[in-house]
Amino acid sequence: MNPSAIREILKLTELPGIISLAGGLPSALTFPVEAVREATARVLRDTPREALQYAASEGFGPLREWVAGEMARQGVAVSAAQVLITTGSQQGLDLVGKVLIDAGSRVAVESPTYLGALQAFVPYEPEFVSVACDDGGPLPDALATSAGARFLYALPNFQNPSGRSIDARRRADLARAAASAGVPIVEDNPYGDLWYDAPPPAPIASHWREGTIYLGSFSKVLAPGLRLGYAIAPDGVFAKLVQAKQAADLHTPGFNQRIVHEIVRSGFLDAHVPTIRSRYRVQRDAMQAALAAHLPTEGALACRWQMPGGGMFFWVELPEGVDSEALLVKAVARGVAFVPGAPFFAGAARANTLRLSFVTVDADAIERGIVALAAALRDLREEAAPPRAAKKASRRAEVAR
Amino acid sequence: MNPSAIREILKLTELPGIISLAGGLPSALTFPVEAVREATARVLRDTPREALQYAASEGFGPLREWVAGEMARQGVAVSAAQVLITTGSQQGLDLVGKVLIDAGSRVAVESPTYLGALQAFVPYEPEFVSVACDDGGPLPDALATSAGARFLYALPNFQNPSGRSIDARRRADLARAAASAGVPIVEDNPYGDLWYDAPPPAPIASHWREGTIYLGSFSKVLAPGLRLGYAIAPDGVFAKLVQAKQAADLHTPGFNQRIVHEIVRSGFLDAHVPTIRSRYRVQRDAMQAALAAHLPTEGALACRWQMPGGGMFFWVELPEGVDSEALLVKAVARGVAFVPGAPFFAGAARANTLRLSFVTVDADAIERGIVALAAALRDLREEAAPPRAAKKASRRAEVAR
Repeated sequence: MNPSAIREILKLTELPGIISLAGGLPSALTFPVEAVREATARVLRDTPREALQYAASEGFGPLREWVAGEMARQGVAVSAAQVLITTGSQQGLDLVGKVLIDAGSRVAVESPTYLGALQAFVPYEPEFVSVACDDGGPLPDALATSAGARFLYALPNFQNPSGRSIDARRRADLARAAASAGVPIVEDNPYGDLWYDAPPPAPIASHWREGTIYLGSFSKVLAPGLRLGYAIAPDGVFAKLVQAKQAADLHTPGFNQRIVHEIVRSGFLDAHVPTIRSRYRVQRDAMQAALAAHLPTEGALACRWQMPGGGMFFWVELPEGVDSEALLVKAVARGVAFVPGAPFFAGAARANTLRLSFVTVDADAIERGIVALAAALRDLREEAAPPRAAKKASRRAEVAR
Repeated sequence: MNPSAIREILKLTELPGIISLAGGLPSALTFPVEAVREATARVLRDTPREALQYAASEGFGPLREWVAGEMARQGVAVSAAQVLITTGSQQGLDLVGKVLIDAGSRVAVESPTYLGALQAFVPYEPEFVSVACDDGGPLPDALATSAGARFLYALPNFQNPSGRSIDARRRADLARAAASAGVPIVEDNPYGDLWYDAPPPAPIASHWREGTIYLGSFSKVLAPGLRLGYAIAPDGVFAKLVQAKQAADLHTPGFNQRIVHEIVRSGFLDAHVPTIRSRYRVQRDAMQAALAAHLPTEGALACRWQMPGGGMFFWVELPEGVDSEALLVKAVARGVAFVPGAPFFAGAARANTLRLSFVTVDADAIERGIVALAAALRDLREEAAPPRAAKKASRRAEVAR
């Protein structure tokens, strides 16, 4: 395994005075502290010893039931017996890798794709196949190139890092193409609830239930520090995932599962998630406005981006030849951090891309961060093409040597 | 991966009316519910948003410091920077497997060894080498047979399943032999605090710090449902373990880490752990007394066992030729469950062995459970050697066919 880009990035965001548009940290203001406090008190009053004891690897029954109900609301009919509670949805990726990947197996991914998924799969030594994508996600026709792959990993809602979504029609087409190519789909959906314009279409799993492993998370709608996610899988794969789960950590903390169930059981999220949406919508709009006001869209430094309909990220394409890692050095000097795009590509990396998070800091800081980013871009250009006088001085120095 | 014996066993223990001497479930009466309640309230009062946010993969700094201090008390000098907080010590085993095992790598294990470790390692496709053991653990001279192994996995204190311990002298000899064979040691210590006669000697890690990965756990001294353990490793391996940890679940729940730190920081365990020891010592003594009173130690059904000095388990050897899985069927019919010994062997399994836990049920239930076990053993013998009349009837039936 290679050193982790995410890790190095998170260190940058911790520097004092840096505006972080880098990590995908949810705003801590969205965490329902009072609800966690009440739920925890109830769990420790009513079932303390059950919550503190070893528990089933599959997860806490009532929480699995709740997830199955939630999936039904989204148009995916599953039973609680197909729901595996995981230690964050990152663990779902690890378990999928452990169960489905052998060394040398082909694994199809979007281009770009979620860096944490690449990191979860890499230890199992797959051969990645990047599926051709456009602004609407993977091209169904391109799936033919991934025949024989163990699975296609896709993030259909407000993708990390690109922000793009797959529409209803392409979801159906992708499911059909994948079924025809015999390639199961691993559908990762951490951001589906974070929509700001219109709710997303039904999951790919609704089109191909028996061929899809679906991953969900409580990190973005409640709090990531509880580390709670879930995986939904067809029966045969499910049994293998449970075994892998047991080998990985026996079970997800029962204490946390009971607290979260206590919170969600009475419909808390129906009122809470809209408040997160409202906050993030404002921040998304602030970032869109700041980008439009400060980043060049014409000329030698023209940048390109699309406003995402939800999620946490803008994906910016810099002019060809501009390396976003070099830009990051200038940006940090100007007091802003982002994530360079290259690590999100499994195949040929596009070094002129970068990811901006709009959920961690408020609208004011977003505006200041984008102003700093635009200044860093100018700094980088000036260094690449130094002013005439400086060039002359440099030539003189050469002659003198 | 094959179906999990542990899973199937845990199902048996859930049958109504069964006395479970099977799973290693700590007594829920030992869980410090009030301390958890107070600590949780403090965490949610003082640092709620930090506790609910994403956190560093290495773990919560103050808890890592506490663990380093605890190791120093045991004679192992480590810095907090070498402590990785894991989602239970089971995850430590998974991460060690992921980092150190390639397909076909040799991995040396005790005979018998902890089943959960075998399950954690198997997905990485090692070739297991069982090191010859006596009642005092692995024989240092036998380590020569494991030259080239990626590591020796050893559980020196009150081993699961055998209950045996490695004494101070053999720890030193093992460290020397392993260093000489170039085989690192993975030292697993979930039970070290659960001693009932005398505290265990210093860890193997104290003899060979740079060649040992040490795994510890809060499951047995606080509560397993919080899923908190730790791994301590030399620098090079540590960096790889952190990467593997990040890919596995990003980090262990910060909420749980802060609660446990809040509990242990002021020396709570110094008063609490002795209460666990007192309870379990009574139960161990009850099991020893019941075994001595009810299991035959002479004749055709002679059984052999040693009283463990700590931990959670007795290991019983039945007469050669008696299969403990067949005995389990009879035992469940009599209302008691245990774990057959065969799955604990990486190599040639000794089918005439079984593991009994004395921590889950109280002394009365232990006594009744052992009475039922002895009855089941007689049932099995009677079936194997049916009384004369039954034999005659059976012969007549054959003739009649």
